[in-house]
Amino acid sequence: MPLDHPAVARNVVRQLEASRIREVANVGMGRDDVLPFWFGEPDQVTPAFIRDAAKAALDDGDTFYTHNYGIPPLRAAIAAYLSTLHRPIDASRVAVTSSGVSALMVLSQLIINPGDRVVAVTPLWPNVAEIPKILGAEVVRVALQFGETWELDLQQLLDALTPDTRAVLLNSPNNPTGWVMPREQQEAVLAHCRRHGIWIVADDVYERLVYSEQPSSERQACAPSFLDIADADDRVISSNSFSKSWLMTGWRLGWLVAPPELMTDIGKLIEYNTSCAPGFVQRAGIVAIERGDEIIGNTVTRYRAARDFLYQRLNALPGITAPRPKGAMYLFFRVDGVSDSLVLCKQLVRDAGLGLAPGNAFGTEGEGYVRWCFASSLERLEDGVQRLERFLAV
Amino acid sequence: MPLDHPAVARNVVRQLEASRIREVANVGMGRDDVLPFWFGEPDQVTPAFIRDAAKAALDDGDTFYTHNYGIPPLRAAIAAYLSTLHRPIDASRVAVTSSGVSALMVLSQLIINPGDRVVAVTPLWPNVAEIPKILGAEVVRVALQFGETWELDLQQLLDALTPDTRAVLLNSPNNPTGWVMPREQQEAVLAHCRRHGIWIVADDVYERLVYSEQPSSERQACAPSFLDIADADDRVISSNSFSKSWLMTGWRLGWLVAPPELMTDIGKLIEYNTSCAPGFVQRAGIVAIERGDEIIGNTVTRYRAARDFLYQRLNALPGITAPRPKGAMYLFFRVDGVSDSLVLCKQLVRDAGLGLAPGNAFGTEGEGYVRWCFASSLERLEDGVQRLERFLAV
Repeated sequence: MPLDHPAVARNVVRQLEASRIREVANVGMGRDDVLPFWFGEPDQVTPAFIRDAAKAALDDGDTFYTHNYGIPPLRAAIAAYLSTLHRPIDASRVAVTSSGVSALMVLSQLIINPGDRVVAVTPLWPNVAEIPKILGAEVVRVALQFGETWELDLQQLLDALTPDTRAVLLNSPNNPTGWVMPREQQEAVLAHCRRHGIWIVADDVYERLVYSEQPSSERQACAPSFLDIADADDRVISSNSFSKSWLMTGWRLGWLVAPPELMTDIGKLIEYNTSCAPGFVQRAGIVAIERGDEIIGNTVTRYRAARDFLYQRLNALPGITAPRPKGAMYLFFRVDGVSDSLVLCKQLVRDAGLGLAPGNAFGTEGEGYVRWCFASSLERLEDGVQRLERFLAV
Repeated sequence: MPLDHPAVARNVVRQLEASRIREVANVGMGRDDVLPFWFGEPDQVTPAFIRDAAKAALDDGDTFYTHNYGIPPLRAAIAAYLSTLHRPIDASRVAVTSSGVSALMVLSQLIINPGDRVVAVTPLWPNVAEIPKILGAEVVRVALQFGETWELDLQQLLDALTPDTRAVLLNSPNNPTGWVMPREQQEAVLAHCRRHGIWIVADDVYERLVYSEQPSSERQACAPSFLDIADADDRVISSNSFSKSWLMTGWRLGWLVAPPELMTDIGKLIEYNTSCAPGFVQRAGIVAIERGDEIIGNTVTRYRAARDFLYQRLNALPGITAPRPKGAMYLFFRVDGVSDSLVLCKQLVRDAGLGLAPGNAFGTEGEGYVRWCFASSLERLEDGVQRLERFLAV
């Protein structure tokens, strides 16, 4: 006799957001006339010298398990790299993970209990806010303000960080808006969280993609970070990834930095999540860090030009208001009269061959907006803008 | 003013078992005179033609995100491979994961709620039983019986599978004991679980490492599997890995097979765990499956000889009783008079240069036993046995 209840996933999982970006991309599946700017992915292959390092490791027979925390030279390279950008960070506080999202999953398993209250600044890359829900957390959202640029109302965030809050989730530079949290706001949040024992989860994946007013300084530029102001034993965990800074999205290599007292438990959780990243991928990561400054410099110069170009072109179109992003690689712009950005983006694929990400993929605060990834050539961006222009003219 | 409660991980994580195998291995860290048989890892590098496939994919510029479920040709290859071993399995029911343990994490997130009752047959590779605890489950253990071979008391398991049980965790062939669950026991468990709506989680990582009484048939051999007897929409989820069958431990590539109705939620959870396995690793996986029969055949022949050799040599030592494993790649043997296998294994490293895994790493049922991974050459195994012999003689 079959049971009444169907064989389905638990409720909390069924209620997770499925990717609306993927839903749009599926409309264009199998069409080679669609210009895709929907995913948060550079349009360039990983530089050859990084790929060569992985190939050399494979030739060396580097096909065995590694330490849960990652191979020591990679941890040392990450620690040295971060220490040039932020306060000195010991390699013992660095754990290598199988992607930035895996770092977020591990740190969420580490600190988030069922029923915990978690606060996120939004709109936001869905993964950051959905992962805590898998662990049974309630996620409270504090929305950035739309304007000349996207801005955070600090007092609103502090008010939301009630003493019973377990963690605050901050992604700066922010996907999708390009908002960069200023140092003074970080200091205020850190002081507040110290007072109430609230964890700060900083998704720092875009920290190197910032566009200062003085382009010449961009080669060493880095967004303000909690790692600049926090002590080692503060309740601050930073997650990061090789994906954006070194054009390595497909490699699934990331890391986290945590207080020393958490590292033993992080080792256990990495064992139970993926055990380790592939050794030959880690070897490529070492080379990326040690010889990657030029990649980052070139990428920032390229994206800055792309941002400026797209910002100007979009704002010249009727009905479109695009704030100027200070970081990351997206323009998150308003389209007048749009009440369902998912419907709009599907139309754009179908009718204009233009692939953009619907704003409501990043939360209800994103409704009415559209995300455009500008990690692309000016030629392709121009082609995309013309498609949008023609679509809007109809 | 600092808070009273320290900045530590949540209780359930602090209570997770840290790896006692690693604790033993740490004793030998930096010594090159230790013979290691502690980890569940073959002593052979991944075959060159598989590494070449990854290198070719890197040359092709395959460094971008892939589908959450894995690239279609890999899903198709896995489905075709499984369909030759078991009942026909459609590629739409296969999801590629970033390791076998990631498959276990994803499927646990899928079905296990805080407070759920989960039953595991033990002793057991710690990850299978610890992952549900991260999600707040209570894990009830049913111990295999020690004897000529390790055996399951079926009635004891069925009695433990009370109607309020959410899932049963079965690893057959079993790590560490080499127990292989017979078809009739699988049929009884399936019928029972159908009756009560209990999920069957089958960790099938060692399914190709079985040692029949007729060695000539080993090239196509496979352990009895729930995938042989279950319908597509039964509450059965199988997790698997490229690690053992194709000598690919370090690649972190696995998969799971689940009922069709779960696949949408599995896609979401893969997105939130690692998003996808690296594309170039997946390309290597295709080649491993399509051209890997010879590897599996050679591996089984080699391990069978290693098992028979070690079985005979160990049982000839005083105070040692080693049941004969029917599958996997371990001997799990009793050492008379041992009340703390962790202490014993540390002594073995320090005093004899022999690296073995303590039985209590696999649960309290494993206390008094030691695990020896025989995925090694006869010469190394003989060297190890002589070290053990000298140690016991002191």
